[in-house]
Amino acid sequence: MARNMLIGQSGGPTVAINASLSGAIKRGMSSEQIGAVYGTKAGIEGILNDNIIPLEPYLTSEMDFSLLEHTPAMALGSCRYKLPELSQGREVYEKVLAVFHKYDIGYFFYIGGNDSMDTVKKLSAYFREIGEDIKVVGIPKTIDNDLACTDHTPGFGSAAKYVATSILEITRDSNVYDMESITIVEIMGRNAGWLTAASALARLGGTSAPHLIYLPEAPFDTERFVQDFKSFTGKVQNLIIAVSEGIRFADGSYVAEANAQTDVFGHKYLSGVGKVLENIVRERSDCKVRSVELNVLQRCAVHIGAETDIQEASKIGEAAVNFALEGKTGIMAVMNRVSNRPYLIEYGYRDVNEIANVERKVPREWINEQGNDVTEEMVEYLRPLILGEAQQYMENGLPKHFTFAPIEYYPEEK
Amino acid sequence: MARNMLIGQSGGPTVAINASLSGAIKRGMSSEQIGAVYGTKAGIEGILNDNIIPLEPYLTSEMDFSLLEHTPAMALGSCRYKLPELSQGREVYEKVLAVFHKYDIGYFFYIGGNDSMDTVKKLSAYFREIGEDIKVVGIPKTIDNDLACTDHTPGFGSAAKYVATSILEITRDSNVYDMESITIVEIMGRNAGWLTAASALARLGGTSAPHLIYLPEAPFDTERFVQDFKSFTGKVQNLIIAVSEGIRFADGSYVAEANAQTDVFGHKYLSGVGKVLENIVRERSDCKVRSVELNVLQRCAVHIGAETDIQEASKIGEAAVNFALEGKTGIMAVMNRVSNRPYLIEYGYRDVNEIANVERKVPREWINEQGNDVTEEMVEYLRPLILGEAQQYMENGLPKHFTFAPIEYYPEEK
Repeated sequence: MARNMLIGQSGGPTVAINASLSGAIKRGMSSEQIGAVYGTKAGIEGILNDNIIPLEPYLTSEMDFSLLEHTPAMALGSCRYKLPELSQGREVYEKVLAVFHKYDIGYFFYIGGNDSMDTVKKLSAYFREIGEDIKVVGIPKTIDNDLACTDHTPGFGSAAKYVATSILEITRDSNVYDMESITIVEIMGRNAGWLTAASALARLGGTSAPHLIYLPEAPFDTERFVQDFKSFTGKVQNLIIAVSEGIRFADGSYVAEANAQTDVFGHKYLSGVGKVLENIVRERSDCKVRSVELNVLQRCAVHIGAETDIQEASKIGEAAVNFALEGKTGIMAVMNRVSNRPYLIEYGYRDVNEIANVERKVPREWINEQGNDVTEEMVEYLRPLILGEAQQYMENGLPKHFTFAPIEYYPEEK
Repeated sequence: MARNMLIGQSGGPTVAINASLSGAIKRGMSSEQIGAVYGTKAGIEGILNDNIIPLEPYLTSEMDFSLLEHTPAMALGSCRYKLPELSQGREVYEKVLAVFHKYDIGYFFYIGGNDSMDTVKKLSAYFREIGEDIKVVGIPKTIDNDLACTDHTPGFGSAAKYVATSILEITRDSNVYDMESITIVEIMGRNAGWLTAASALARLGGTSAPHLIYLPEAPFDTERFVQDFKSFTGKVQNLIIAVSEGIRFADGSYVAEANAQTDVFGHKYLSGVGKVLENIVRERSDCKVRSVELNVLQRCAVHIGAETDIQEASKIGEAAVNFALEGKTGIMAVMNRVSNRPYLIEYGYRDVNEIANVERKVPREWINEQGNDVTEEMVEYLRPLILGEAQQYMENGLPKHFTFAPIEYYPEEK
């Protein structure tokens, strides 16, 4: 007999996470093995609070699905809740089970990053242990691209396109004055440098920027940095430097921490690595310098999203449902790159134990020897991920977004 | 006999300034009264350095013009040079005149803001004084929308669309967690609040954000701010606050200056009004708070440009050439709004003496009484300016940009 499906979203926002939601819901709705399709509001917290809603009423046309796919951040809401170890919080697991029983859930899908895969791992192990036939399958997402076992993660391509496009536009902005200048662009990525590496794609747009790229995977040295930017003097008028927020000194401490400042209330305040490098340039040269922090728009600017990313996110959501229907559990759906030119992806799955709580960093050999740029191999890897322009749904000159039950769930929405 | 035309760009970048360049060049090329069409590299500095190039060779197809129109920042480069008073630097004017004679310039167009209109004013007065028949016409541009005598300025609509879209996307990003939060969005505008006011357009996208809007034209009071954000407690879960970088206390001092910080080198450092408000919220409440500074992308993100803005910018460039051909000089081309629904614009001109060095601020009556929002009249004024999606020319998943003589002019370009 058909059992029901539940899906949730977790972790930080991306442009493509709703595309995975859409792909999974659509596959669930079309399967005879699956009855109703439910969503949990705010991830695992929604399960613990019995905040479960039926999703089919919201998605009655192809247009609804497409609009959901092109809406940034989590339409179902998110959480940062981490399940306790079973031995330390069995009652939490029993609460989850009770809610699953209440809605007759046979298939649970969780879209998220490292921490969310920890939830998939723990829940699937628990159900296995108690002999409960509930399939638990993870669907990857993160702009950080730091999940193991998958060629890349949905959400990364759009963020990469945002970063490369921004570098191109900032380069145009920097080039207008006929004087030497340095622009430092700070990019998200606390531990992994993939997104900062994507700044190199701007070169495919006909610029030589960025001229220097610093990732967390290569230790940062202030004196070498000074040599680096000075080596361009007289050669490049408007220097563009891409830097990951998470770069560290050789001793492992964050460079951003070198700039702890004190505000009017006497609080120590971390102002970002861009400002630290800006101050170094100002201290060690006469060059005009500014820093630009690419902000949260990196992860929510669907207006410059990559359609390749959004389509892949939708397909991996669909694939995850297929794997669950085949009886798989305790897995995450993954992408395997079959070929690069032409760019071809196949969808597979891997044991979530290989993925949960593991961070996939940029391999050192994809960073140049001096630690101030990425290699051609990295560019070749990144190149296809930003292709395609995300479909725009506009109204009143503004992007149109999909929402589930806006009045109940977003009390501030009109 | 046909005399030649010269055009230059000045001031800060916008998304639409090259559209005005394109419109003016195209009209110049099509006129029998005009011979060659020249460009000056880096505005008035290019004239003083005799850095003049013929433009026709670069623009040989409709596609070239359209690509130029959709390229951000100044394709001809910019400067911040202000002409001295004639009485204090007649030799500078004579140098300009010599270069104009060398290229037989009969028509000069200068695209820029307040300061650039000062150049138009001074040069046209000089030519009049010495009886030289050279028409000098200004073409407005600025994301600040602070030029007098014109309904709005080219470049503003696209920046406004960027701001409103970003607010919408940041709202989605803020709504994912089921907890109270405050997000402060800092928007450009040192003296005029037009661009920050445009954040209100996000409401046309189906959100109630931003919930508070602070402009430089209404004095800022810390205690009233605390009351303002606290009044939403329990009513709005994720508060979005739009604030202009240039807000001031009643005594006229910038709020941003209240947060002067000291870096590792002992330098006083101005970190922005967003951080100041963030610290106030942190100090005066337990609410989760973050600030987002919309950076230079506000003025160069053609990827979310308004096609209405770009088309108007092109047409006002064309109109400026027409006015010069009719014999006008010492004027700036302006836009007059004939009607709002339907939105209709007519192109006219005004004496540049009414415009140069004047800042048009937001009228107090378009700000609500409490000074924390804008009125419906403001929204009605802004609404049509962000309509239409800027044409995207993409290659390798990235925007394609136009350049004049990239190798000579941008030594860092490949």
